Amino acid sequence: MTGLGPHHDGSELYVPAGTPGLGDVVPVRLRVPAGYGETSVHVRYVHDGEPFLAEARHDRTGEGERWYVAEVPVHNPVTSYRFLVDHPGGYHWVDGRGTHHRDVADAADFRLTVHEPGPDWLRDGVVYQVFPDRFARSRTSGDLDLPDWAVPAPSWDAEPPLAGREAAATVYGGDLRGIAERLDHLEQLGADVLYLTPVFEARSVHRYDAVSFDRVDPLLGGDAALVELCAAVHARGMRIMGDLTTNHTGVGHEWFTRALADRSAPEADFFYWTDAGHVGWKGHASLPKLDWASTELAHRMVTGADSVTTRWLREPFGLDGWRVDVANMTGRLGVQDDASHVARLMRTAMAAVRPDLALVAEHAHDPSADLAGDGWHATMSYAAFTRPVWSWLRPAGGTVWELPVAVAPRPAGAMVATMREFSSAVPWQVAARQWNLLGSHDTPRIRTLLGGDRALLEVAVGLLATLPGTPMVFAGDEVGAQGSNGEHARTTMPWDDPARWDGATFALFRRLLAVRRESRALRRGGLRWVDLGPDAVAFLRETPDERVLVLAARAPWSGARLPGLARAGDNLTGAAPLHVDDDGAIHLPGEGPTFQVWRLA
Amino acid sequence: MTGLGPHHDGSELYVPAGTPGLGDVVPVRLRVPAGYGETSVHVRYVHDGEPFLAEARHDRTGEGERWYVAEVPVHNPVTSYRFLVDHPGGYHWVDGRGTHHRDVADAADFRLTVHEPGPDWLRDGVVYQVFPDRFARSRTSGDLDLPDWAVPAPSWDAEPPLAGREAAATVYGGDLRGIAERLDHLEQLGADVLYLTPVFEARSVHRYDAVSFDRVDPLLGGDAALVELCAAVHARGMRIMGDLTTNHTGVGHEWFTRALADRSAPEADFFYWTDAGHVGWKGHASLPKLDWASTELAHRMVTGADSVTTRWLREPFGLDGWRVDVANMTGRLGVQDDASHVARLMRTAMAAVRPDLALVAEHAHDPSADLAGDGWHATMSYAAFTRPVWSWLRPAGGTVWELPVAVAPRPAGAMVATMREFSSAVPWQVAARQWNLLGSHDTPRIRTLLGGDRALLEVAVGLLATLPGTPMVFAGDEVGAQGSNGEHARTTMPWDDPARWDGATFALFRRLLAVRRESRALRRGGLRWVDLGPDAVAFLRETPDERVLVLAARAPWSGARLPGLARAGDNLTGAAPLHVDDDGAIHLPGEGPTFQVWRLA
Repeated sequence: MTGLGPHHDGSELYVPAGTPGLGDVVPVRLRVPAGYGETSVHVRYVHDGEPFLAEARHDRTGEGERWYVAEVPVHNPVTSYRFLVDHPGGYHWVDGRGTHHRDVADAADFRLTVHEPGPDWLRDGVVYQVFPDRFARSRTSGDLDLPDWAVPAPSWDAEPPLAGREAAATVYGGDLRGIAERLDHLEQLGADVLYLTPVFEARSVHRYDAVSFDRVDPLLGGDAALVELCAAVHARGMRIMGDLTTNHTGVGHEWFTRALADRSAPEADFFYWTDAGHVGWKGHASLPKLDWASTELAHRMVTGADSVTTRWLREPFGLDGWRVDVANMTGRLGVQDDASHVARLMRTAMAAVRPDLALVAEHAHDPSADLAGDGWHATMSYAAFTRPVWSWLRPAGGTVWELPVAVAPRPAGAMVATMREFSSAVPWQVAARQWNLLGSHDTPRIRTLLGGDRALLEVAVGLLATLPGTPMVFAGDEVGAQGSNGEHARTTMPWDDPARWDGATFALFRRLLAVRRESRALRRGGLRWVDLGPDAVAFLRETPDERVLVLAARAPWSGARLPGLARAGDNLTGAAPLHVDDDGAIHLPGEGPTFQVWRLA
Repeated sequence: MTGLGPHHDGSELYVPAGTPGLGDVVPVRLRVPAGYGETSVHVRYVHDGEPFLAEARHDRTGEGERWYVAEVPVHNPVTSYRFLVDHPGGYHWVDGRGTHHRDVADAADFRLTVHEPGPDWLRDGVVYQVFPDRFARSRTSGDLDLPDWAVPAPSWDAEPPLAGREAAATVYGGDLRGIAERLDHLEQLGADVLYLTPVFEARSVHRYDAVSFDRVDPLLGGDAALVELCAAVHARGMRIMGDLTTNHTGVGHEWFTRALADRSAPEADFFYWTDAGHVGWKGHASLPKLDWASTELAHRMVTGADSVTTRWLREPFGLDGWRVDVANMTGRLGVQDDASHVARLMRTAMAAVRPDLALVAEHAHDPSADLAGDGWHATMSYAAFTRPVWSWLRPAGGTVWELPVAVAPRPAGAMVATMREFSSAVPWQVAARQWNLLGSHDTPRIRTLLGGDRALLEVAVGLLATLPGTPMVFAGDEVGAQGSNGEHARTTMPWDDPARWDGATFALFRRLLAVRRESRALRRGGLRWVDLGPDAVAFLRETPDERVLVLAARAPWSGARLPGLARAGDNLTGAAPLHVDDDGAIHLPGEGPTFQVWRLA
């Protein structure tokens, strides 16, 4: 038994490629396994707040399954729909979470939107996150001329501080020219989008406390170094994204300084003021929160001809998009909620610069309310990817990130249910561009979370490379970096330290990211899950021309037989081909931990 | 095993009564069964889009359970929260759908809102829906002076037409004075809120096609009769609600006539125009859709000093609120979505008339997006009550209302899961005022749906009387009226036809509604479900001073033992007291169909 039921998702097998316009009628397809016993299929769509039904017609009969097609009119900017499958045992609903034998709410309905999704390079690419101070020093940099807030690191290979002021102040001296010199490494890994955490002048090594949005920190090489880096990246056909703090500035920011000196200055309206002073992000006075009710702030940040948002996207720089810091809180304070307003402003202003720019929000929790499709193209997918993967693969012991509780591994079904719950709450074209990550500069390192176990790491990286969404690799993960929290994870790249450079880990990242690059189904295909119990899970990624079967196991398990799926399959990771039994059933061996990818024939 | 896990809801046992204000800190409580094994409890709340955790402290130890309390700051108008329970087997989340052994989205989080809920009479009352033409003729009415659209019914006791123009045109001659003369019946039943479907002059018997919002139909007795009815209702301490079509008018409406005659008239902007003419609701040209982008429309309907919304609430009329027709589509067309704007306008205008008025929206599907708490007080709860109850109690055969599929009964667990899914998506104080109904003028009669089975009807009415929400009875259900669809269900009251007056059914409605009235826990208590398998379900309704156990079974079942809940219990329906075994466990007998309510001691 494959456990595969009726299925639909937003990929090409089920919905025509491209973005529909208002007034279009879109054919949507449902596949139903032979023998399921359905007596009719309808689509239910919501139109001006009211559900309507349209009967699906039998479209074709495939191998072991029937396909139905129904038409959904695109009347509202977002049209939600699901399928009604009648059955002698009672009708079923099919939505993004699966098949339900009861009535369900609309939250997990599929969605057609008229909003263009993020660019294809965002979907097809692999993002490489660089924390500039810790990546590479340019060969021409001499002794650093440190500002007053900075403390020099004892050495490039010293372990980063764990916490406190020291963590934010310790400068290792990486710079933008250093990054430009190491682009070969990205190419070798298989990454093609360079994402830099902030580069504007600030008073910390993380630079989320900008003193200006108008200049690149001289410590990183200044504006000229960014111009050079953008050119070097583009010369390789790669992309580069910046990181913008829309929620707050640093207390030393020139806008805040002016506001503080003169409450009648235009910048005074950029911030919130109480009797006790200004409002800081999460109570941190060092990070004054920005008030997006100010139209002058919106003008300088986004809508003006030379705004912060747009200036760095243009020549001579040419960033290809922004990751937006603390996007989930931006514009939100008490009764005020300008979050979607800010997102739409940025989206619109960026689209006017170039049509293929990317706008990705930081959101570490439930981003669904902010992802209708007209604002952020996507978010960092801590909720739909990072946490569920960790929950399945982390061995017991230690604490859960951001929660004061102990880790106890969840069964695969829990991981999948959480992934489906979050993914089904946003349009497929958004889910397909969510940034999947195993960790970032804000989390422990994945290698550390997995207790150093390279076999489990391979499973984790395998999921990163094969599930819908854009893989994001935090620089260092690919050579086995360790780190017990966000600060501690900001390790330098061990270019010259063989003890810290795990070549086998680099090889596994490279191999698995190559599998993704070489398979269109892994980048753009649909997703069908196969339940294999607590310790293993399989899924199919499918386009009209390609079918890929992925098997992930965290431990030895019972093995399984999946009849009727394929006659043969090459292993894309270079391991053993698919074992098909004499009776035509795929035999999945019960080994583990393991990660396998087969292209089905 | 009771199957009771950790529990919280928005009732007084867990959240202080009253509406919090911005800046308040609200203590919220979680109860955990003894032996559950929790090692800590935290509350997770969302603040400006970011989750925060606060540790709960042990509050007290009750009989067989521990209580925890944590504090939630009310910083945003709606603050969502859930509980984190750490456990050696892995942490759990507790939200409005229950306890989850994996990470979950925020959709079912509990909610504190600063918006005043609907009035208490809406929560404590019982609504009685009257379709004026079919309820009662005043003794003084002579031969009817019928307008051109009307067809006289053959007799008061004739079966209503099933469909078509005839259904909308057949006048039986009920009127408002007839209703006033029959208020004793409502009192005997135990209803105290009279809700009238539209009374404005129209061209159909349902009057959802108003020709004016300025006058009561002369067929119903005109304005004077409404004045008299309001006075008569209020003299008994009862309430009366009207029905307003905000989505459309009739094609004969004076605004539309003016618009049609003169496209420069102010009323022309009230409607939508295309090359093919005006836009009608669901394509019906006879029902021109209203365009809420028109500020003049908003002025006349809501915000003006003598607006439609407010005029009928004032002297000499004094309606106590509105049920809003097609609220789910009001203000929605293509890219336009003014639905929440309209709801807030109406809410604000009504609050300025009197603080205790009610605003209840028609919404037959998923209303959660429209129930944040600042617009409609509540909706008709087809999704969270009607359909799930039907899905459990309807015998196989016939079709599902509004779906082209056959009925197949669902297990109790499916009913409960659907109820929880919809209820958990809105604030508790909204859910507590949702209009629970077994049917309306838009559906088949419940008696017909249940195949005429009075024992199943008792279970259905029992759920109506004991679950959170405001019971709404469609006039006639209480005497066993039958009807196979909405039109056919618009039967006259059989005042003088003993063959149609089922006294036993009236007695069961009366008895069960009295149980509700006499138990504060049934009106205001929390709700804990007890799983008893497919054919039976139990739940606890609890306040600090009262605990009530409800048992509903649709068929004979296995029976159950619930240890540790109570030592004794009187049966509030007058049947057998609770059977408590020698070892202190409640014994629930496996009879069915049955409906029992015990007050626990």
